[in-house]
Amino acid sequence: MIFPDFANEREYLDYLETRADLPPGFRVSTGRIDFTASERPSLEPYRMDLSLIALDRPTDRFAAVFTKNAFPGAPVIIGRERLSEPELGAILINNKISNVRAATGVQDALALSTNVAERLGFSPTSVWSVSTGIIGWRLPVVEMRGAIPDLCDGLASGSSLPVAKAIMTTDSFPKVRRVDVGGGSIVAIAKGAGMIEPDMATMLVFVLTDLDISRSVLREVLPAAVSGSFNAISVDGDMSTSDMVLLASSATGPAVPASEFQEALTSLCGLLAQDVVRNGEGTGHVIEVTVSGAEGNDVARGIGKAIVNSPLVKTAVYGNDPNVGRLVSAIGDYTGSAGIALDPNAVELSIGEERVYANGAFTISRETEVRLSDYLKMTALNPRLTGYPQHQRVVKIAVDLGAGSGVATVWGSDLSDQYVHENADYRT
Amino acid sequence: MIFPDFANEREYLDYLETRADLPPGFRVSTGRIDFTASERPSLEPYRMDLSLIALDRPTDRFAAVFTKNAFPGAPVIIGRERLSEPELGAILINNKISNVRAATGVQDALALSTNVAERLGFSPTSVWSVSTGIIGWRLPVVEMRGAIPDLCDGLASGSSLPVAKAIMTTDSFPKVRRVDVGGGSIVAIAKGAGMIEPDMATMLVFVLTDLDISRSVLREVLPAAVSGSFNAISVDGDMSTSDMVLLASSATGPAVPASEFQEALTSLCGLLAQDVVRNGEGTGHVIEVTVSGAEGNDVARGIGKAIVNSPLVKTAVYGNDPNVGRLVSAIGDYTGSAGIALDPNAVELSIGEERVYANGAFTISRETEVRLSDYLKMTALNPRLTGYPQHQRVVKIAVDLGAGSGVATVWGSDLSDQYVHENADYRT
Repeated sequence: MIFPDFANEREYLDYLETRADLPPGFRVSTGRIDFTASERPSLEPYRMDLSLIALDRPTDRFAAVFTKNAFPGAPVIIGRERLSEPELGAILINNKISNVRAATGVQDALALSTNVAERLGFSPTSVWSVSTGIIGWRLPVVEMRGAIPDLCDGLASGSSLPVAKAIMTTDSFPKVRRVDVGGGSIVAIAKGAGMIEPDMATMLVFVLTDLDISRSVLREVLPAAVSGSFNAISVDGDMSTSDMVLLASSATGPAVPASEFQEALTSLCGLLAQDVVRNGEGTGHVIEVTVSGAEGNDVARGIGKAIVNSPLVKTAVYGNDPNVGRLVSAIGDYTGSAGIALDPNAVELSIGEERVYANGAFTISRETEVRLSDYLKMTALNPRLTGYPQHQRVVKIAVDLGAGSGVATVWGSDLSDQYVHENADYRT
Repeated sequence: MIFPDFANEREYLDYLETRADLPPGFRVSTGRIDFTASERPSLEPYRMDLSLIALDRPTDRFAAVFTKNAFPGAPVIIGRERLSEPELGAILINNKISNVRAATGVQDALALSTNVAERLGFSPTSVWSVSTGIIGWRLPVVEMRGAIPDLCDGLASGSSLPVAKAIMTTDSFPKVRRVDVGGGSIVAIAKGAGMIEPDMATMLVFVLTDLDISRSVLREVLPAAVSGSFNAISVDGDMSTSDMVLLASSATGPAVPASEFQEALTSLCGLLAQDVVRNGEGTGHVIEVTVSGAEGNDVARGIGKAIVNSPLVKTAVYGNDPNVGRLVSAIGDYTGSAGIALDPNAVELSIGEERVYANGAFTISRETEVRLSDYLKMTALNPRLTGYPQHQRVVKIAVDLGAGSGVATVWGSDLSDQYVHENADYRT
């Protein structure tokens, strides 16, 4: 499932097209509307993309994981309720406005899903309305309703790529991952952007499969797969008000054992989660931190996230500057603040294959600094080449705390911008 | 103690000069050395500023607060021990290299302080060696020792401003605050930089007074003053490996009641802490977040820090974009992740004088967006005008959780850079 290196956007999209076929039992369509946003100082028209994903026949095989953000948007509030409905029939998705804490948010979402349900002949509670974009603004319900007939009539099987494109907000490129397993397939698309236009940093993931997996198994395996993938990435914070991972099976294909499905799903989610990090506008490196030897997995994950969220570490990596002091400072700040016991003499740190700290002191020299800088250059993406991921190499940082058996791996991006760029290499 | 607005660097430095006189009983000197750093790829000479602060007579009246970072530097390790020494005589300070986790760090610092002590005729354990700069590199001990005789011989009473300048690393301007109280004075200088060159983000604060306050009172009031000031600011993380606040009294002046001293010290530290935020290179706004109605003060402080550390909030403020959705998302992410109960319907949010969220929904319109944007422009600093703080206005964000009596105020900076700048106003 590892992608090849891509030299340009066309190569990437051509490759995706070969991998993006919807599993049997699903159809999609996309559309576009212009509207005037009532909260926007400018009266210029605003453009919104709409997507519809529908089952040929509503299914009882679906599961979802939602943000833990304490101010969930209307789609999350309604989604949590709809998890206990007998069926999922269709998902209406819009970008530009996330429908979070607008005064009429819940009723707007319900009106839209009822509208879709009527047109498709499905039960109203089997349709979800999912939104991503600016928080606090109202959906343009009138204009959206006007587009629903064409969306419903245009549903077609074939490629999931148009939806992967239409759910983008500030994403640099569409994200699709696929795995073929046991005579069926799992296809997942994701929307989620990075640091630079962080209004839109909601992550939405739709995982579609024809594999005949029971509702209860889907609900058991999805949280586990999300935990080690989408919940292990951090671009500019962890959870937006609207994050959602939705998994649906049309059950039109063969059955596979739960363990086999779980393994395929976990691998798929891990790669797609890295794509979400890789696709942030301005991302120059994907950073993979593995923390071991912790008192528990939670401690390991906390330290990993502290590292990938540290502006100090992120700017250094962007500048290809192997500033190992910032790594130590980030670990020490997090553990010191959280009251987590840590023995500086037991800790070991590596970047790539290079040991940089052991036995209580740094093990660096002029030569290691040069080798590490070369390693960072080799793993760099060119953040100016947007529209496609150039490769899948990551910066590997390993931390062994020497204190227990807790382990975690997390992923994050560097922090790039012109100003930091100008200053990031001042040390060398 | 509020500074006037300044039109240029000269005005600021002239004003500081009128406020920077050392309290009686203290003398200072500064010097400079060039050296080749053994870990640096380049062989070009590196320039280091040295400062010496000395008591006329060693004092038993001193207190200190240190970083909680789990990888403390040699100065912190030694400083913690020296807190129990009977006397403080002098403080040697260098910039450029922080003396953290270098293999010979502790012995290097001890050698330097012994050298100063011999020259001044003080006890070796009454001299502190304090460092700020790059983590992991070794101090140029030979060159530093060579400069110590001139430093000791050059000690003079008068202005603290030369030291405030010499301890700077990437600071935009020297920071001095003074308060006159009960016939004596407290003068404090700080070093601490912001986001852009975060290698050097260590905060060092030296608070000097002639007021006759006992050792035990100093040690009681300093942690309290630091808690609401230097521990309530956040620029790019909370604690470096070397942060230190050192308070010393020459006891050559009058005595004042402990409560009066505490009040003056707390106010002084609060303003100096805001200066540390304001002085970050590239800082476009100082953000002051007050959280009330929390279950406890700790919860209030945690939410405040989550807001000022949110890249989403920081970039919006930089762009003068009143993106209130990001505020809600940051609060919801933090509380949701930490498992802190929060009722979205009880929360109220204001920016400046403007209510933006109440009763579970945003209270925004085209008109409030325009007013809030004007407010952000009015509180903005021009980050290109470095070398002096233009004014002391801050962006006030108030969060009332409606759940208890816990309160906290924290300060942070926005996040400015050319790339973010180009994208920060895309919404309007």
